[in-house]
Formats: sequence, structure tokens, C-alpha cells
Amino acid sequence: MRGFYIGRFQPYHNGHHRMVAEIASEVDELVLGIGSANDSHSPRNPFTAGERVMMVTKSVVDLDITTYVVPIEDLDRNSVWVSHVQSMSPAFDVAYSNNPLVIQLFSEAGVEVRQSPMFNRDVLEGAELRERMISGDDWRDLVPTPVVEVIAEINGIERIQRVSDTDSNGADST
Amino acid sequence: MRGFYIGRFQPYHNGHHRMVAEIASEVDELVLGIGSANDSHSPRNPFTAGERVMMVTKSVVDLDITTYVVPIEDLDRNSVWVSHVQSMSPAFDVAYSNNPLVIQLFSEAGVEVRQSPMFNRDVLEGAELRERMISGDDWRDLVPTPVVEVIAEINGIERIQRVSDTDSNGADST
Amino acid sequence: MRGFYIGRFQPYHNGHHRMVAEIASEVDELVLGIGSANDSHSPRNPFTAGERVMMVTKSVVDLDITTYVVPIEDLDRNSVWVSHVQSMSPAFDVAYSNNPLVIQLFSEAGVEVRQSPMFNRDVLEGAELRERMISGDDWRDLVPTPVVEVIAEINGIERIQRVSDTDSNGADST
Amino acid sequence: MRGFYIGRFQPYHNGHHRMVAEIASEVDELVLGIGSANDSHSPRNPFTAGERVMMVTKSVVDLDITTYVVPIEDLDRNSVWVSHVQSMSPAFDVAYSNNPLVIQLFSEAGVEVRQSPMFNRDVLEGAELRERMISGDDWRDLVPTPVVEVIAEINGIERIQRVSDTDSNGADST
Amino acid sequence: MRGFYIGRFQPYHNGHHRMVAEIASEVDELVLGIGSANDSHSPRNPFTAGERVMMVTKSVVDLDITTYVVPIEDLDRNSVWVSHVQSMSPAFDVAYSNNPLVIQLFSEAGVEVRQSPMFNRDVLEGAELRERMISGDDWRDLVPTPVVEVIAEINGIERIQRVSDTDSNGADST
Amino acid sequence: MRGFYIGRFQPYHNGHHRMVAEIASEVDELVLGIGSANDSHSPRNPFTAGERVMMVTKSVVDLDITTYVVPIEDLDRNSVWVSHVQSMSPAFDVAYSNNPLVIQLFSEAGVEVRQSPMFNRDVLEGAELRERMISGDDWRDLVPTPVVEVIAEINGIERIQRVSDTDSNGADST
Repeated sequence: MRGFYIGRFQPYHNGHHRMVAEIASEVDELVLGIGSANDSHSPRNPFTAGERVMMVTKSVVDLDITTYVVPIEDLDRNSVWVSHVQSMSPAFDVAYSNNPLVIQLFSEAGVEVRQSPMFNRDVLEGAELRERMISGDDWRDLVPTPVVEVIAEINGIERIQRVSDTDSNGADST
Repeated sequence: MRGFYIGRFQPYHNGHHRMVAEIASEVDELVLGIGSANDSHSPRNPFTAGERVMMVTKSVVDLDITTYVVPIEDLDRNSVWVSHVQSMSPAFDVAYSNNPLVIQLFSEAGVEVRQSPMFNRDVLEGAELRERMISGDDWRDLVPTPVVEVIAEINGIERIQRVSDTDSNGADST
Repeated sequence: MRGFYIGRFQPYHNGHHRMVAEIASEVDELVLGIGSANDSHSPRNPFTAGERVMMVTKSVVDLDITTYVVPIEDLDRNSVWVSHVQSMSPAFDVAYSNNPLVIQLFSEAGVEVRQSPMFNRDVLEGAELRERMISGDDWRDLVPTPVVEVIAEINGIERIQRVSDTDSNGADST
Repeated sequence: MRGFYIGRFQPYHNGHHRMVAEIASEVDELVLGIGSANDSHSPRNPFTAGERVMMVTKSVVDLDITTYVVPIEDLDRNSVWVSHVQSMSPAFDVAYSNNPLVIQLFSEAGVEVRQSPMFNRDVLEGAELRERMISGDDWRDLVPTPVVEVIAEINGIERIQRVSDTDSNGADST
Repeated sequence: MRGFYIGRFQPYHNGHHRMVAEIASEVDELVLGIGSANDSHSPRNPFTAGERVMMVTKSVVDLDITTYVVPIEDLDRNSVWVSHVQSMSPAFDVAYSNNPLVIQLFSEAGVEVRQSPMFNRDVLEGAELRERMISGDDWRDLVPTPVVEVIAEINGIERIQRVSDTDSNGADST
Repeated sequence: MRGFYIGRFQPYHNGHHRMVAEIASEVDELVLGIGSANDSHSPRNPFTAGERVMMVTKSVVDLDITTYVVPIEDLDRNSVWVSHVQSMSPAFDVAYSNNPLVIQLFSEAGVEVRQSPMFNRDVLEGAELRERMISGDDWRDLVPTPVVEVIAEINGIERIQRVSDTDSNGADST
């Protein structure tokens, strides 16, 4: 059985990692979808899809199951979102999510969705993590070691701090 | 003379219906444009274009004049909006709206626009209706009967309640 | 039971009309999808979506069943085409087509498709019709009367002749 | 040496003009990029790209250096923004900006960026100017004379006042 | 009176230049629209919009009238093409073109179009010029001097030769 | 050192596989970009991005180096193609290609490109393979075993045969 789990992974952190380990015990193969792959260099989405592919791939390398890490661009059209995801991913039997919209879209399309209380934690931890990066607080113990290395290599802290400056709201608004 | 009236119709309600009846007395044929046709499954735009086509078509079936119900996707570019609408609609002589931007765009393009104090009501009623659907209050007496039937058939109340959950803000943000 | 039939209807002609009559005998309601709704003013797609909405609506007005005429813009992404069509149309139970790609896409999505030998004829007749319009040959007896009227009203023959000039290949290529 | 300076220029005002004069003393040729060229008729972006091309071109006509005025549409994808700008502009050696995101994007791409305290002023002045236009206060002494003339010619004050009405939030939301 | 003349200018050549001189004698100000501004690095559109802005601006610098050089991206939707052009350009009173589609689109929108037998020549000369560049034949005497300089500066001949290799048909097809 | 190799992989075949093995001997990590990820169900691009992710991932599982398999959607804008690829991929030091356009684009962006005579073979073999699939000839010995399995699982031969029918030219043309 193949499972699908999507997140923006900005960045990939220990909360995600615990969920992935949990899902890995239920499936034979796991697809990790990187959402909003087209977005980067913003306070909410500081890292590019490629940078996130590295973070995730290096963090899950020791899992016993086959994993696929797939960037998924936004189409900004909820009605075709499930078809879009299915076209970018190896075929999957079950989707894991606690996001109400994702659950609704998969359910209407007849895809089985599994929820877990622990899934809620990643949303909160993602925002908290980015806040710590911006304010200079410690964040390194909240993510897998490969994520620390990737962020160091790309000067990620300087980037998120700069794009979060108050008078910066998009290259469109210069 | 052919008239044009555009709304998002999320959902089509009695306020819209009174306006349509009013306009129907002034024109020979009426085009009903369904705006933001590409959007659905969001708190502000819960229903798909096709679902709204059904709501509107079934509600105006007893009007004495020929009606066209035309979904119109957003192009997100105000400067070409009038041309876009004109290409999707049978040619029309007069547009009905109280929306200041719509009035401005049609006026700059040389299209006659007619306003009426009653036109303001639909905006308020649409938001109020969706709030009632989300909170479980009664809304059925505020819309034509065919709209009640369409929403029941598609499990529309469950959908709007789910996509309005507080931590849901778009498939993009999973 | 609701049926769905899609065509570009450039223009709507007697071949289409015979098919629509045939389908109408099998279903309770019929959705007529106007494909490539975003295209116009080209040799292959001379008429706008709105002009085609008029041609089709006026031609099917005497059918005994409820019909919906719905413009459908191209998304240029086959993998989400079925979802896109479904979001723009009232829900349908069966799709009518002889186009191999359309059959394949609906089949993969689990939608029933019905074919008929007569469905092939419209493709040929559409191209033949446009050729006659361009070369000034007679075409009026090949389409329903309302189509003749719409094309006259919009100076459609002058338009198709001009955009078919040999050195004209798109506004992009000026 | 060729310099590049980008702004939305909604409208082009004395703050921009002082900066342009300052930059003109450092470079041989100057490219003025008009950002968000695809946006218009909104409270934040009331004027079209073409109207802004006129404002800027007529205001810089007396500069001693060669200037290029280039509209640049938003691509809504930060990761390719620098390449997009470079493809629309004559090649440039240095970019002038105080916007943190713009600085970050150019820096990651290896383009030299120069900042100046005076560059901050334009952001504030742009918003203040539009507020004055909306509320009917005086704004004419804050912009070069050609800008006053362009805005008069296009009835720009009526437009910004109308599209800033409280219940107007986009043609999409009619 | 302000005139508008659009071309892809791949590259700007003596045929274009003669037309521009002709038009300049009829108008007070002239807008030169650079079509297909989003395309480059292809056999048909080898040069970027920015490179073409340089070619044109430097070639018309000695004209006695005010000129605007405006890149215009393709929207791939004929029905809104005129509105798009109008939003990117200073307002114009008359358009110059011999392209049948452009004439048709402007005419339907009520814009005056002027044709001239000499306008046909540029199409042929553009294709011929690119053929010469690809095959290594002489082309320099067919374009204004600044165009020779721009193409040398950007290594334009190497580029067009490479992207015209027979097994190269787009980055999409690697 | 990290290398990047892009192909459409329609399907992934022995020619690709030999190249990958060759590249693997020169680099520490390898990114395999799946081009035209948004296209599928066409004669030239029969398989979805997700199906190709499976083919490639399962075929390279025994390589000794770390590999990343990344779908890359077309942006249809050559000037930003390199930035787009870089944003979707882990950072790479060298790109492998024999496609003249790809070489030109990477070279202009300052990215090292390595060519090899063997790289030409894949283009020919891809078209030949698809022809064999369409005509029912044998193709299984030209691809790695996992590719045979994926194509069987998705009924890929039936799909390519159907979408290659002569009167099928896109869902847009129904």
C-alpha cells in the first residue's frame, strides 16, 4: 500500500518527522508532496522547492520504506487540486492529512483520508520555527540535522530575516 | 434589448432573484454572468461554477424572457475585464451593477451601466447567508427552492462548514 | 439522468444538431459544453464563446428537455481536464463523445462514455463549413437558422475571411 | 555603466524624481522599470502601465542621460523574478533599491545593489499621495507637472476615488 | 495625434525603420510596441524584450517626435488583445498595421487602422534576416547601426545559430 | 559535486539509463529532472509526471550515489528557464545535456554544461520507443524492468494508442 502526505515543509521539522515515522509503519511506500513548490523568498515560504527536496530527502534516508519526494506547484483552483496532485505523484491508496480543506477535497474525489491528532502539531510548529529564525532565537534542536546543514549552506537565516522586513511585501510591490 | 447582470451567486438568493425580476421587466433578453467561476471550496466561494449554473438556471426557468447563464473565470487583470466578459457573453446593450469597480470599468469602456439602490442588498445578504450555513442557523427561506435542492444534493452545508474551519486556508497552505 | 456533450461548435451545425436530438432522447437533462471558450478570431476558432452560447441556446430552444450551455476554457493540462469540466458543469452521469482523447480521459476518471458512429461526422463538417465560409461558398443550409442570424449580426464571414489570410498567424506574430 | 531602478510609480512623484536625479549622476544610462505593470484600477495600483509610461517618460525628458522606461508584469514567483526583470530590460550593471526583498533577490543572483536612505521615502509618499487623491486633498505639488497633466487627461482622480469605495474589492468579487 | 505601431522586431531592421519614418511624418507622438515580449531564445524570437528595447530605442533616437518603446507580452487570447495593448501603451488615436488579424481586432474595437503597401515588406525581411544570421550570410547592411552593435554585445549570432539547431525545439522538449 | 540531468523520460529507457550510469561515475549526487511535468496523455508525452517519477526512481535504486528525482513543469518562457530549474532542484555544479537550447540557456547563465556523443541517442530512442508502443511492436527490451512494470500497472499501452488516434489532437479540440 502506498501513502501520500503533503506539507509545505517550511522547513521540514521534528513534528513532520514524527508523523512520517508514524505513517511509515502503516504503508509500504510513501510519497512526500512538497506543497506551494512555486513559492519561495517570502516570510511564510522562505525556502525554494529544491531546498526543501534536499531537507526532506536527507532526513528520511534511513527509513526502511521506499519514499518519493515530489514538489507540487499551486494551481490556485481547488476543484482540480486532487487531479493535479495525482498527476504529479506515484499512484497512492490513502492520503494523510488533518487539514480540513484537504480532507474535503480528497473525500469528494473518493480518496481515503486518515487523520491523527498528532498531525495538527506541524502547523503550529512551522510558524513558531520561522518566528524563531526571524528573531534570532534558537531553532536548531527542533529540526533534523540535515535541515540545519541545508539552511546553513544556503544562508537561509539571513534570507528569512531579510524577506520578513516590515516594508517588504513582495517583489511585486517594490 | 439585452441586459447583463453579474454576480458570484454564492449562493443565488432571494435578493438576487428580486433584482433579476426587476431587470427582466426592462430588457428582452438577460445574460446572467457567474463571476469567479474558477473558484470553489473556499469560505467565500464554496460552490463550483457548475453548481451555481444549476442554481441559477433552475431558479429563473419561469421568467418570460430568454436568459443565458454564463460562467466567467477571473483573469485577475482589471484592464481587460470588460473585453473578457464581452467575449464570454452574448452581446449586451446595458450592464446592471452597483459595484463601484464594475461601474468604473464598464464606463471607461463606453458601456451603459444602470444602478439601483436595491442592488446593494445582495452583497450583504450573500455574506450573511454563508455565515448562517456555517453556524448551522436557518438559511433556506432566503433562497429560491431550487437552490435548497441543489445544495442538499451536493452536501453543500458540510462542505462550507469544513472549508471554513479556522486552520484551513487553502489547499496551497497544507 | 443528465448527459454531457462537448464541442467547439465553430459554428454549431446540423451535424451537431442531429447528435443533440439523438442524445436528448436518452437523457432527462443535457449539458452542452462549449470547448476552447478562451479562443476566438482564429481560422480554427473564429467565434467567441459568447457568440457560440447564442448559436447553441437559440438552436436548442425547442428541445423538450432542460439544457445548460456552458463555456469551458482550455487549461492545457490533460491530467486535470475531467475535473475542470466537472467543476464548470452541472453534475452529469454520462458523457457523449467519439474523440479518442476525451474517451480516454473520461474512462480513466471512471466516467461512463457513450459513442456513436454519427458522432464522427461533426468534426469533418466543422472544417468543411469553415472552408466554405472562407472561400465564399454556400454554407447556410448546413446550420440551424439561428446560427445564420448570429453570424450575420456579428459580421462573422468577414471576420473568418480576414483572420484566415495567409500571412496572419496570431496577434502574437505581428 | 547602466543602472536599473524599479518602482510601481502609482503615481510617479517628487520622491521618485529626486532619486532618479541622484542615480542619473552615477550612471551613463538608466532603466526605469514600471513594476506590477499588469495591475490597474485598484486602490493600490490605480493607473495602467501605459499611463505610468507616459508619466515617467515625460517627467525625465530633460535628464542628460539616455533613459529606458520598461513596464514589467508580475510573474508571482520570486525565484525567477531577477531573470524576468533582466529579460525585459536592457542589460544593467547595478540595481538601485531599498526594498529588502529586491535586495535579497538581486544579491542571491550576484547583481550589485546600491541603497540610499532617501530611497525609503518613496514608499511612504506613494501611499500618502493616493490617500490625498481619494479624500480630495491637494496632491499636485508633490508630483512633476507632466504627472498632473496625465492624471487630468485620464480622469484619474475620479477613477481612484471610485475603485476605493469600501464595498469594492475587485471585479472578481462583484 | 499619437500613433501606435507594433512588431516583434526580431531584429529591428531597415524595413521597420522606413515605416517608422513614414509614420513619424503623420503623428505627433509614436508608440512602438514590442510584441511577443515574453518570448526569446527561439529561432523565430531569438532576442529578449530588453535587447529589442535597446535596438529600437537607439535606432529612433534621432526622430523629431517623442517615441515610447513598450514591450507587450502575449496573453494568447485574441478577444482581449486590444484592451491589453491599450493598457500597456500611452493612449493612441490610430494604429498602423498590415496584419489582417491585427486590423480585424482593432476594427472590431473601434480603433482606426491605417495600412500601407510598404508595411508588408517587414514580415518577409524579418524571416530572411534570421535565415542569413543562421547560415552565416551577411545581414549587417539590412539593419540600423545600433542593431549591429547590440547583437554583437550579446553574442546574438551564436545564440540564434545554436537555438536553431535541428534537434532543438524548446527547453520543454529536452 | 552535484550533477543535473534533465529529460522528459517518455518513457525512461536504456539510453537514459546508460547516460545516468556514466554521469554517476563523475558526481557525488545526481538530480534527475523530469521535464514537461505538466504534460501527459498526448502522443509525445503519454505518461504523467508521477508515473515517470516511479519509472525513474525504481530504475536508479541500485546506483551507489544519492539521487533526487524532481518533476519540472514548463513555464514556456526561455528567459527564466534556468532560474526555474534551479528553484526546483537541489543546487548543482554541472549540467549534462546535448540539447542545443539547454546548452545555450545554461551557458548564458554561467552554469557549466558537459556534453557527450552518447547523449544524442536518447532523443531518437524515445520517439522510436513510442512508435513501437503505438504500432504494437516490441519495446520491452529497450527499457529497464521497473519501467515495464509501471507501464503495465497503468495500462500505458492502451493509453498511448488511444491518444495517438489520428483525429485526436487534444482535449481542446473536441
